Amino acid sequence: MDIKNITEARRWSEEKMQKVGLYATAGMFCDVYCFEPGQFQKLHNHENADKVYVVLEGEGRFVVEDEEQVLTANETLGVAAPLRHGVFNDSNERLVVLVFLAGEYPKSLSQ
Amino acid sequence: MDIKNITEARRWSEEKMQKVGLYATAGMFCDVYCFEPGQFQKLHNHENADKVYVVLEGEGRFVVEDEEQVLTANETLGVAAPLRHGVFNDSNERLVVLVFLAGEYPKSLSQ
Repeated sequence: MDIKNITEARRWSEEKMQKVGLYATAGMFCDVYCFEPGQFQKLHNHENADKVYVVLEGEGRFVVEDEEQVLTANETLGVAAPLRHGVFNDSNERLVVLVFLAGEYPKSLSQ
Repeated sequence: MDIKNITEARRWSEEKMQKVGLYATAGMFCDVYCFEPGQFQKLHNHENADKVYVVLEGEGRFVVEDEEQVLTANETLGVAAPLRHGVFNDSNERLVVLVFLAGEYPKSLSQ
């Protein structure tokens, strides 16, 4: 059985936010993103993949196109392709986010 | 922005376990499954879709083919298509599981 423990999987670096892969197939991945205070995932987009962020610890400022909102533990954000999005840890605490991405298919899953 | 709160989304029934949809596209869904003590998701499989379970609260007995293991909060299980799998709440507490499924494509994402 392909079991992981998110608490143990977390990894930190002073250099930049860390992406820890839990599962990946041809059509999806499930990662844990670990942000020290001040770290971020810069604005980007996926032409053909949809993403779900799940905040596990701390709080982050999530941006989708020209909107933004601070989310805390147990809050989730869905980002349909091809919207531009990013995550910023403006807080003084560590931020841990679970990330699911499905797609990179020829056609957006949101269409 | 498509934001949800998992704590608020949880829903319970004495009848059977509840599936609460958070996000769904043509190629994936993200649900919250809510099990009262004794409730379960029976063994089943997906021909062409991969699943990730994330235990959020409580503990559940997860079965994949002829293996099983009890998982608690912050533990995850990946189930590649077309493996047979199910979830059983044998405990005396409520069980909450985040479920991400990507696929139902002609070809398994795991191949």
